[in-house]
Amino acid sequence: MQPSGIISLITDFGLIDPYVGQMKGSILRRNPGVQLVDLSHAISRQDIIGAAIALHSSYAFFPPGTVHLIVVDPGVGSQRRILAAAGEEQIFVGPDNGILSLLLRDRIITRVYQIEKKELFADTVSSTFHGRDIMGPVAATLAGGLEPIAAVGPEVSLASCVCLDLPVASVSEKKITGQVLQVDHFGNIRTTIRSTDLEHLEFLADSQRCRVQINEFAIQVKKAMSTTYAEAEPGKLIALLDSAGYLEIAVNRGSAAELTGCRLGDPVQVACRPERKKNKAAERS
Amino acid sequence: MQPSGIISLITDFGLIDPYVGQMKGSILRRNPGVQLVDLSHAISRQDIIGAAIALHSSYAFFPPGTVHLIVVDPGVGSQRRILAAAGEEQIFVGPDNGILSLLLRDRIITRVYQIEKKELFADTVSSTFHGRDIMGPVAATLAGGLEPIAAVGPEVSLASCVCLDLPVASVSEKKITGQVLQVDHFGNIRTTIRSTDLEHLEFLADSQRCRVQINEFAIQVKKAMSTTYAEAEPGKLIALLDSAGYLEIAVNRGSAAELTGCRLGDPVQVACRPERKKNKAAERS
Amino acid sequence: MQPSGIISLITDFGLIDPYVGQMKGSILRRNPGVQLVDLSHAISRQDIIGAAIALHSSYAFFPPGTVHLIVVDPGVGSQRRILAAAGEEQIFVGPDNGILSLLLRDRIITRVYQIEKKELFADTVSSTFHGRDIMGPVAATLAGGLEPIAAVGPEVSLASCVCLDLPVASVSEKKITGQVLQVDHFGNIRTTIRSTDLEHLEFLADSQRCRVQINEFAIQVKKAMSTTYAEAEPGKLIALLDSAGYLEIAVNRGSAAELTGCRLGDPVQVACRPERKKNKAAERS
Repeated sequence: MQPSGIISLITDFGLIDPYVGQMKGSILRRNPGVQLVDLSHAISRQDIIGAAIALHSSYAFFPPGTVHLIVVDPGVGSQRRILAAAGEEQIFVGPDNGILSLLLRDRIITRVYQIEKKELFADTVSSTFHGRDIMGPVAATLAGGLEPIAAVGPEVSLASCVCLDLPVASVSEKKITGQVLQVDHFGNIRTTIRSTDLEHLEFLADSQRCRVQINEFAIQVKKAMSTTYAEAEPGKLIALLDSAGYLEIAVNRGSAAELTGCRLGDPVQVACRPERKKNKAAERS
Repeated sequence: MQPSGIISLITDFGLIDPYVGQMKGSILRRNPGVQLVDLSHAISRQDIIGAAIALHSSYAFFPPGTVHLIVVDPGVGSQRRILAAAGEEQIFVGPDNGILSLLLRDRIITRVYQIEKKELFADTVSSTFHGRDIMGPVAATLAGGLEPIAAVGPEVSLASCVCLDLPVASVSEKKITGQVLQVDHFGNIRTTIRSTDLEHLEFLADSQRCRVQINEFAIQVKKAMSTTYAEAEPGKLIALLDSAGYLEIAVNRGSAAELTGCRLGDPVQVACRPERKKNKAAERS
Repeated sequence: MQPSGIISLITDFGLIDPYVGQMKGSILRRNPGVQLVDLSHAISRQDIIGAAIALHSSYAFFPPGTVHLIVVDPGVGSQRRILAAAGEEQIFVGPDNGILSLLLRDRIITRVYQIEKKELFADTVSSTFHGRDIMGPVAATLAGGLEPIAAVGPEVSLASCVCLDLPVASVSEKKITGQVLQVDHFGNIRTTIRSTDLEHLEFLADSQRCRVQINEFAIQVKKAMSTTYAEAEPGKLIALLDSAGYLEIAVNRGSAAELTGCRLGDPVQVACRPERKKNKAAERS
């Protein structure tokens, strides 16, 4: 893997305080040539799962050789390990607290090293800000190819890394039950239902129809899901697969979250029935 | 036009979700050498006019050869065209929905091409995020001079581009009536009245005085408008021409929006009268 | 001092309006090769002390040769001077209104020049935005080493620069009284008490104990202060010295500001007593 000189950043620091800037200063002190890209600094405080999802749905858009630095680190100063993990194309640096869970689950990460080599840290290491004093300088070293990843410390097993359970959908042949996972700035609703879950449904194999249900709102879905907001009439709910593979509920030119009044964790169902039965039912009514 | 390697960004994505970062990753995947500058990601959702104003008042401060990428794209996935437009010094990439209206009105843009060449897109193109999958990579290609602008697709006529009407001031010889266009972070009020409108007023040609009126507040203005906040006493309203050519109402070390209680769309008037009459009136009272 | 090509930015512009981006455009127009790092654009409007603290606690993390550009400038357009100041390793550019107070107090800054050389300004200089039209281009010139700092204008005395008084702690041998200075995004409380103040306390020289008091909450502190959040039980208050040398009150995995209900300016006390007396008192009770 050729280093790209690029570091992406995910933190829960917010943009009010100068912490993100301090960490960037520290990165540039090690390697003034790196290019820094903010993915999000608005992860909820100490929301490890939120950081894991942001990373998982974003890393693949970056060039090979990118280092992704994820600092959501409630255990800073404790004995928790700090890791540098290598995938086939990219590197991930962060505390061993579950932020890599989704990458581990999907076998994106193939090797993990425990960061220990003090020569790679900043000259002074505080106990309260390892993003700036340890992880940033190490990420800068790796992004510039100044050292190989194996130089950061001993290799550790994938199985030893903290891996959190994410809420998953429960799947049967005719029904999938998930929940609201995230709501974005546009009011689009990301659910815990994945495209791989939907493959279990008959309707994708056969000519059937199905229905996505959220609160009291139902969306009729054809065999092939909508793929674009603009397919729907403005103001109407639509279900589609987002580019990270999650079932998403949206409104063309509107906010699905406002329309449905949904909250995080609200149940979402996808249910299927054969097309003929549905037509009969329709004739009857 | 020599490419500058710089891309400015205007979106309505906000900074909570990782969308801006994903788009930047995709840009760097095409061209890791570009420099990325955020102009604003806080355009109100789907506010095409707001994006058009931000672009129009900002582009000229960038180096020649800059590519400005504007992604406020409620029609993503529909048949709306995606454009690459060239001015004398700069390039503009975005959907054909009116975001270029002010540049077209002021004849800043001289040639427009419809982006169609799939080889310039990302390897995978989603239906919901063309900023990341189409416009970003094309902007990266143009910013690096990897391809000339004519390579993106066929040239289209300026007249065929969507051009939205902006609220404009109504102008007579003695009076201009406009409205509140924007309020900024400092509480400065930008109005729809332009410096070119004021040229119609007699007072600029002759020795007269005029009065700017907003809600129940009146500001006496001398022949030459104030040019700096600090000219006014702290806490007092002042009218001046901002650097983008709009009549602005401000308060030295305070918020004009708070003081006047104004809202977007509130009427603003500039009225003129000969200096002598005014003095007489003053004597009488 | 070798120029690093890096400019850090502190402003009160916010991230809604395109002002930060315009200033960056103007910087890149002068010098397209500089690397720009945001420290904070969320300084409260016209909060010069807030900017001074952010700068003072952040500058040292950047590479030698960095130019720090601080634009909190309520006096824009007035006769206030604009300064370029040199420390041993770094350069500071901003208005002469007190933003350099802490660096002057701590003798970080050794030479100051008044920016006057119009050839270094942007081609057009507005009266309302000198960050974009004067300070930005000058910072770009200095960051790239295009001109030496002495080229910006005449040297002025350190004593002539505006230096604001910051709230300081009052110190006696057994007691320090300070106040709440800032609260960060995590709810950590920064106080006006500095590590140098604590050196006056006997307990640091001798084997004693002391107590940090904020509102009705008391924190028992051992001779060596805690150095990490994780040392405390989750949910418990802890006092530590932050990496900028301020006494900080925090909660492991929680918000000290929420727990104590403190506000800016609330009193904070550190009181000491000999260990033996304390033990006796403990026995008695």
